[in-house]
Amino acid sequence: MKELEKRILEGTHLLKDNIIRVDSFLNHQIDVAFLNEIAKEFKKRFSDVKVDKILTIEASGIAIAVIASQQFDNTPVVFAKKTLSKNLDKNFYFEKVFSFTKDTTYDIMVSKKYITEGENVLIIDDFLANGKASLALCDIVKKAKANVVGVGVVIEKANQLGRTRLEQAGIRIESLARVDIKDDGIRFK
Amino acid sequence: MKELEKRILEGTHLLKDNIIRVDSFLNHQIDVAFLNEIAKEFKKRFSDVKVDKILTIEASGIAIAVIASQQFDNTPVVFAKKTLSKNLDKNFYFEKVFSFTKDTTYDIMVSKKYITEGENVLIIDDFLANGKASLALCDIVKKAKANVVGVGVVIEKANQLGRTRLEQAGIRIESLARVDIKDDGIRFK
Repeated sequence: MKELEKRILEGTHLLKDNIIRVDSFLNHQIDVAFLNEIAKEFKKRFSDVKVDKILTIEASGIAIAVIASQQFDNTPVVFAKKTLSKNLDKNFYFEKVFSFTKDTTYDIMVSKKYITEGENVLIIDDFLANGKASLALCDIVKKAKANVVGVGVVIEKANQLGRTRLEQAGIRIESLARVDIKDDGIRFK
Repeated sequence: MKELEKRILEGTHLLKDNIIRVDSFLNHQIDVAFLNEIAKEFKKRFSDVKVDKILTIEASGIAIAVIASQQFDNTPVVFAKKTLSKNLDKNFYFEKVFSFTKDTTYDIMVSKKYITEGENVLIIDDFLANGKASLALCDIVKKAKANVVGVGVVIEKANQLGRTRLEQAGIRIESLARVDIKDDGIRFK
């Protein structure tokens, strides 16, 4: 998506800290009209699959997932909750996720009521980097005996291992911008 | 909203733990079609005010705020981030919120870039209970020299002090269901 690449370039000042900044439209302030364009693009990419449920992770995946849902006949959205506490509630699926950016491990949890056997689940998130969060969501879907029809992310950090890890696990991945961060700037693949 | 009251009754089993459960449609699984009805009701309630921005708080406010935005000409949404860490970044507004349900104090933060002087801000959230979170959002809007045009919540716990506190602060509050929890069940006001 050209407009997405433009916005990524506008927000990102690589000389300063090498971080992709999308807080003006995606993960702090949200441009809802632009999210609608993103949602249409997800629908285009996944027009060939049946989607019974959209699964995402709090907090910045939620806005993208609910606007995407409108393109998939308002299919229900479930967002995994993050928790630091040891929680053994048997009504939930749990997975551990290691976050490199925060250098910490957290649990994500999804109620067993809301992902059920045989459902076709589309996973939606803002970023794909090392793939740990997406794979944890996939593992929850598998525990529920449901099917992952694909993972759709707005921005893929193409110099990290996320895509490789998902493809090795047999998961289809669609990203709307593939960003390669080099010392001298950003390139799109 | 009659449909909202019906759903609150369906999800809530007061004999068990006296907690209002809306995780089947609002704060874990999200019914996007129903959120659209909620959004239309917010538009009806606040049809008399100019809204330049919608402010909410992660995580469960986000879905409601972005779908509400579609009824207000896709006005930008900003969600306050919760943080437990001592953060002194001068580019952000900070407020402390004490959570009774979690018995802990956390900071919320909003970038100074995204709430600006003179803007008309509508605050949207899932619950109003003791009002602490809503008042903290109002304080951030005031620090930015912007105007709170109102607070819209899906569910108000009418036996707690939130409404009184907001009204004493001169803030207009609209709630789509006013729930009074008694020992023998739920009543709607």
